[in-house]
Amino acid sequence: MHSPEIRVVLVAPSHPGNIGAAARAMKNMALSELVLVRPRHFPDAEATARASGADDVLGAARVVGTLAEALQGCGYVAATTSRERDQYFRIVDVREAAARIVAAAQRAPAAVVFGAERTGLTNEELETAHALIRIPANDAYASLNLAMAVQLVAYELFRAHAQPVITSSPGAAPLASAENMQRLFAHFEQVLEEVDFRDRTQSGTHLMSRIRRFLQRAELDHNEVNILRGFLTAVQNRRRPAGPRT
Amino acid sequence: MHSPEIRVVLVAPSHPGNIGAAARAMKNMALSELVLVRPRHFPDAEATARASGADDVLGAARVVGTLAEALQGCGYVAATTSRERDQYFRIVDVREAAARIVAAAQRAPAAVVFGAERTGLTNEELETAHALIRIPANDAYASLNLAMAVQLVAYELFRAHAQPVITSSPGAAPLASAENMQRLFAHFEQVLEEVDFRDRTQSGTHLMSRIRRFLQRAELDHNEVNILRGFLTAVQNRRRPAGPRT
Repeated sequence: MHSPEIRVVLVAPSHPGNIGAAARAMKNMALSELVLVRPRHFPDAEATARASGADDVLGAARVVGTLAEALQGCGYVAATTSRERDQYFRIVDVREAAARIVAAAQRAPAAVVFGAERTGLTNEELETAHALIRIPANDAYASLNLAMAVQLVAYELFRAHAQPVITSSPGAAPLASAENMQRLFAHFEQVLEEVDFRDRTQSGTHLMSRIRRFLQRAELDHNEVNILRGFLTAVQNRRRPAGPRT
Repeated sequence: MHSPEIRVVLVAPSHPGNIGAAARAMKNMALSELVLVRPRHFPDAEATARASGADDVLGAARVVGTLAEALQGCGYVAATTSRERDQYFRIVDVREAAARIVAAAQRAPAAVVFGAERTGLTNEELETAHALIRIPANDAYASLNLAMAVQLVAYELFRAHAQPVITSSPGAAPLASAENMQRLFAHFEQVLEEVDFRDRTQSGTHLMSRIRRFLQRAELDHNEVNILRGFLTAVQNRRRPAGPRT
């Protein structure tokens, strides 16, 4: 077991002040790995000012182009959303989510993903997560500042780390990585097309989204992903008995 | 029983951005009563920008000259401190403190006091509080941004309010008000002088500070303050048998 690694991923943050404030909030709660996906302004003097004594965390922040890159090598992924978009997602209270993340980070790096200030995360981005984090708040004004949300999650992670209530079972296989899940989804989508399966649900949610969401809720490990991939390959081979899967 | 009132008191905040961010953090967690003691800049465009949709909380903020004014009419008072100055104070974890504050606010308005960004609260200011709030944090970098501290306390208050674990006993007398406590301290100090009692402790803490701190830890109600005041008056009368207490 390696020492737990928990990434904080900010997707497309608009205000550099929030990046700095997030870095400070992280260091206050003993987190150090910050990943920025397409930040609008970075590096930036305002970010540095707001980071205060967390200039080391800010300086070590990785800047990447896609969420997939940010999640490379990660096992458990949790995402935050201010909107009520809970259809088919697993929604977990931030306190319980923190306990899960800390436990999962014993097995493989975990990540918490935060969306842009005004727009949040897209459905596709949310679907990279095993669970969505719910921060209890005033129904009449539930929109938290981005860095404040980072602070609250980091605080609960710090508490969960200090007093773990969920212990990861050491015999369990590692969670499937984010890349692995994306490959599974792509494979699934390809097979849906090959078998000419169209969305017949009336839910308004695209079929593939539904599938991504329930598979994320399942928190699949690597072996389980392999089983599904094997099944999908078998379906393809049955339709194309003459050739191997491409 | 009236609906609970919990004041957030910021003493001498330097950065107007923090005032606005604190107002937003409060509204996100269903708090509305903000009191500012000698803010350096207020009102201010930066405060308004950071308050975002909490412009109502910001607009209704009271500005006062002293902490005593801010605490007028309050029962239970908790203060935050980033420094380790726990000598003789009651130190309570923020989660437990939130439960106490919510319970106490059923009896009389309660308050949470935050100090200035760089300097925090003075010892005298801390001594207006029944308890000091400890926010768990990274020992290597425990200094939280002011508005972040407001956010964490407000969040725990919101949770404590949603799921109360401590119920105030309805038969108990109301906590002594902050003004009442200050009058008790002044009376005590006067008597110490009259009886020519000098500090003989080696603790480095001024005698009157010691007394204030242990009396605050006691969480005295109005009747208990009256008992002490009566005792002090009796001491004075015994020394001046000819005249009434002035």
